Amino acid sequence: MPVETRVITVTGKEDCGIVDITEMVSEEVKNSKIRNGTVTVFCIGSTGAISTMEFESNLSKDISEMLEELIPLNKDYHHHKTWGDYNGGSHLRSFLVGPSLTVPFIEKELTLGTWQQIVYINFDRIEKVRKIVLQIIGDF
Amino acid sequence: MPVETRVITVTGKEDCGIVDITEMVSEEVKNSKIRNGTVTVFCIGSTGAISTMEFESNLSKDISEMLEELIPLNKDYHHHKTWGDYNGGSHLRSFLVGPSLTVPFIEKELTLGTWQQIVYINFDRIEKVRKIVLQIIGDF
Amino acid sequence: MPVETRVITVTGKEDCGIVDITEMVSEEVKNSKIRNGTVTVFCIGSTGAISTMEFESNLSKDISEMLEELIPLNKDYHHHKTWGDYNGGSHLRSFLVGPSLTVPFIEKELTLGTWQQIVYINFDRIEKVRKIVLQIIGDF
Repeated sequence: MPVETRVITVTGKEDCGIVDITEMVSEEVKNSKIRNGTVTVFCIGSTGAISTMEFESNLSKDISEMLEELIPLNKDYHHHKTWGDYNGGSHLRSFLVGPSLTVPFIEKELTLGTWQQIVYINFDRIEKVRKIVLQIIGDF
Repeated sequence: MPVETRVITVTGKEDCGIVDITEMVSEEVKNSKIRNGTVTVFCIGSTGAISTMEFESNLSKDISEMLEELIPLNKDYHHHKTWGDYNGGSHLRSFLVGPSLTVPFIEKELTLGTWQQIVYINFDRIEKVRKIVLQIIGDF
Repeated sequence: MPVETRVITVTGKEDCGIVDITEMVSEEVKNSKIRNGTVTVFCIGSTGAISTMEFESNLSKDISEMLEELIPLNKDYHHHKTWGDYNGGSHLRSFLVGPSLTVPFIEKELTLGTWQQIVYINFDRIEKVRKIVLQIIGDF
């Protein structure tokens, strides 16, 4: 029965580092034996997130500024008392954007729009190497 | 192996046009051969989104006003320098709400609450006809 | 064909009651016959949501305060004119965080990070007992 798991490793810069992972996801789907189905893109860890956007540097700046306005990183969060790692804002952003995205594919092609890329975002205050699970489910 | 793809076409008004697509999704699940599983509802494009809500006009107004407060459309976003289409706020809202929703179904019935509808939201500044992919996966 | 449905019942306190449901989800995956796949965690109802976070009480406070700042509960929402239940803010938060989360599992283990738990959040103004559907899909 057709389930194929792939794990990709992605490095995201600190404080809203956005990485276009569309090609990596697309490649893994193409290299699988599954023709039609869904790929669930799941970020392991609670200070990162997955979504889609038009991946271009100006919009990346806008996303960073929007999140800084809504959920500032430099704020005295309660969470800082727990571990002293000062990444409360990183956690809040991750919670809100979410760690999981499920994308359909048809004949091995992801059903993305032309200006729609799959992105991983690192919200932590330090650069992070992160594992992202791709769970590919469907039929041959 | 049970995967069925359906594509529905939906027209959403400009600037936070919310469309109840529950019946369309429900119909496609019922017309499929799959009895138990999940349907992934995926918006093609980076200025729309999918979520659930109690679909009623006053709450639709609240959603529009909340998003306008959090992410104003008329703001001088960096993205506007890239294409000059002035829809930076549309992209930001789409990124935050997200383009994908996965809903379980049991014996062909979506597991929604009574006051919980599946909605597509058009965040673009112009009315848009959009394709939404329904990937139905499960067993007979 | 491998689909297993489980329904768990969770009580969440009023006004941003966060419940760690990781163990419940993990148990159901382990008790199923499916070894590799995904579990879709779906909140029935439009005033609750599902996401992941590091589950600890200080971060729970931060989430509550962040949401109160972005989407205050005590505001004169249009939705209140419809039913008079004064939970417009609850609906808005649910819409934004989202009711559905899909998590991969490998050899019956959820692919969560060490400090990443699956949480259900009750945004309603009253304590609520809620049904959450777990749709487990994959292979033996």
